[in-house]
Amino acid sequence: MMAALETVFRNARLTDGTLVHIGVRGGRITGIASAEATAPVAAGVVEVGGRLLLPGLVEGHIHLDTSFYGDSWQPYRPCRDGFDVRERVAIQMENLARAAPMEERACHQLELCIGHGTTAMRSHVMISAEVGLRHLEVILAVREAFREIIDLQLVAFPQSGIISNPGAAKLLDEAVCLGCDVVGGLDPATFDNDLDGHLDVVFGIAERRGVPIDIHLHDHGTLGAYEIEQIAARTSASGLQGRVAISHAYALGDMTAPQQQKLGDTLALAGVAIMTNAPGNHAFPPVALLRKAGVTVFSGSDNIRDSWWPYGDGDMIRRANMIGYRSGFFEDHELVMAFDLVTTGGATALGLADYGLAEGCKADFVILDAAHVPEAVAGVPGNRSVYKGGRLVAENGRLPARPA
Amino acid sequence: MMAALETVFRNARLTDGTLVHIGVRGGRITGIASAEATAPVAAGVVEVGGRLLLPGLVEGHIHLDTSFYGDSWQPYRPCRDGFDVRERVAIQMENLARAAPMEERACHQLELCIGHGTTAMRSHVMISAEVGLRHLEVILAVREAFREIIDLQLVAFPQSGIISNPGAAKLLDEAVCLGCDVVGGLDPATFDNDLDGHLDVVFGIAERRGVPIDIHLHDHGTLGAYEIEQIAARTSASGLQGRVAISHAYALGDMTAPQQQKLGDTLALAGVAIMTNAPGNHAFPPVALLRKAGVTVFSGSDNIRDSWWPYGDGDMIRRANMIGYRSGFFEDHELVMAFDLVTTGGATALGLADYGLAEGCKADFVILDAAHVPEAVAGVPGNRSVYKGGRLVAENGRLPARPA
Repeated sequence: MMAALETVFRNARLTDGTLVHIGVRGGRITGIASAEATAPVAAGVVEVGGRLLLPGLVEGHIHLDTSFYGDSWQPYRPCRDGFDVRERVAIQMENLARAAPMEERACHQLELCIGHGTTAMRSHVMISAEVGLRHLEVILAVREAFREIIDLQLVAFPQSGIISNPGAAKLLDEAVCLGCDVVGGLDPATFDNDLDGHLDVVFGIAERRGVPIDIHLHDHGTLGAYEIEQIAARTSASGLQGRVAISHAYALGDMTAPQQQKLGDTLALAGVAIMTNAPGNHAFPPVALLRKAGVTVFSGSDNIRDSWWPYGDGDMIRRANMIGYRSGFFEDHELVMAFDLVTTGGATALGLADYGLAEGCKADFVILDAAHVPEAVAGVPGNRSVYKGGRLVAENGRLPARPA
Repeated sequence: MMAALETVFRNARLTDGTLVHIGVRGGRITGIASAEATAPVAAGVVEVGGRLLLPGLVEGHIHLDTSFYGDSWQPYRPCRDGFDVRERVAIQMENLARAAPMEERACHQLELCIGHGTTAMRSHVMISAEVGLRHLEVILAVREAFREIIDLQLVAFPQSGIISNPGAAKLLDEAVCLGCDVVGGLDPATFDNDLDGHLDVVFGIAERRGVPIDIHLHDHGTLGAYEIEQIAARTSASGLQGRVAISHAYALGDMTAPQQQKLGDTLALAGVAIMTNAPGNHAFPPVALLRKAGVTVFSGSDNIRDSWWPYGDGDMIRRANMIGYRSGFFEDHELVMAFDLVTTGGATALGLADYGLAEGCKADFVILDAAHVPEAVAGVPGNRSVYKGGRLVAENGRLPARPA
């Protein structure tokens, strides 16, 4: 006879429409059985009642240290003479000096995301000669406080560059030793004016410390394309296939379809993943084409109400909706593809072990009112129940047991 | 002494941040006084409690007869060989034949929109030789049922063309006599292959029956630009300035800024308004440039979960957010501009009398949790109270007194 389970989720609807009972013990799925069978015996019973049960959402790109969400409104201040990243960073530092304590703001943002169903996240954390490791120390403490309810990867993010920010290279390395899971980069050619020097540091840390890479690359056009090629070549040369991501990669949106196809093949071969949040007013990577080429594509909110823009709500199902809207995805299989970016695609890019709805996987679920994934992506239903390791962590956007 | 009022809305926050009491009698605003003054005496008191009180939202372009919202999911079916409007219309007719009764679907859509705060709406209604006036008869009855809680303008919309759909011209005229407030059109050059013939009918009905015009114009590029010029010229020649709108006008997104400026000046001079819903994956009119040129710009959901796409939620604050997101609006004054499209801009385009927060205007309000308009547009708060003529019609998306 089957040993008693901690919890059974009864009558959960899977994405293929079947109704199942899901057994959970020790925070993991022990089995999934047709709801026509007798439900297994368990100490706790969650009656899902035919609602759609999805794997926990994966937020693949966020900045926990810079958002003003939950703090007072900070109006966006434009650069004096057209957009300039360095001026933007300086404005951000001024804004942050006036903001509520970072710990408080990061907690607000985490609660927002978890409330929408995110159970795993990759956050970039600013590392620079100016801020040193101070942001990281705060976010590490926040991660510790939230460790029971969200899996949080941290990227050592050189917001002020590496080569042009003396001391940054050493700090990035220290950040990894201190607990960052990933080493980041930022527009090697345009920000640091030294493509090779920048990538030498990033790939050097990755190889020395055995961590993956996630590089912010906003550079458009042919230069951005060249940087993507260089990153792919270094990835293959270092044997880091499957452990490197390029975030934004706007240049992929600026080229013709045959060029996209060629570069997509290169990325697939090198095992480099692409993160897009489907920005509003300029080109971005062609999601369907890249996926067809075999590239792992994932998504994230990026900035949420910070010095970079006033948008963002931390809802990865709405993000899937936006990816679909911006990509012209109307058919069901396309809406499912958009959803994959915020679930399985994200899990693959982040290298999450034991992700998904299968025996042995973590019992991370979001339960909502929709007949199937296309309807969820099109309608973005609000009323959600979120489970982490089989335990309820959020209901209707509220966290019953907010970490202290 | 002031005569007793029906209702006073106490401690309402206006968009300029001031706290006021608003008196309402006979469905209209009788006065707005600083909250520092003693609140006027009234039979009913609504304690707004410092929440933001905005004028009712204006849905400027919707199709009440075609949505499947509230009905079962209808997967999007692509055209056989690339997008084709005639094939799309044929697919739509097949889908509608299988759908729930139109009256039911239209009611679901109206409840969705009213729940989000829409108090005035312009809906296109399909008129063609195939469907005759059947759609209109249903939607007229629905309008009657909802007349206490939403102001609904109907456009006689030639979904299957005019010149290429024998009988349509006469039906459009009959539709106006039967109760349509506006005469519509559809891609005169590409759908009917007869720009002048099409516009002769549309402008003929407008002049003969004294109704405004709202023409669907999806045509891109130089042809679309030419059609816009022709519509502007006819508007001036007919003395219809301020009574003509072009919906979509995608061509305005396809040209250079100097060309946009020139055509914007032409539209402003002719008094032709532009409706955009900020589509996701192709160019659309430049909102800020057109407004600066003096053009009335308004917005609408367009299709909501119908045969044309699976998107849309009937929330005009989210639509303002989308307009901002797609237009690269980050600054507060830009977010306010996006909001204007779904309030004052819409009211101007629709020719709504007595719209706004001023003495004598209709007491149509949406009350929500935000410090000001930029925060409302960026955050799209969900918890709203909607008042029509001073009477509560929706709370948190639910209509307490759904029309029979």
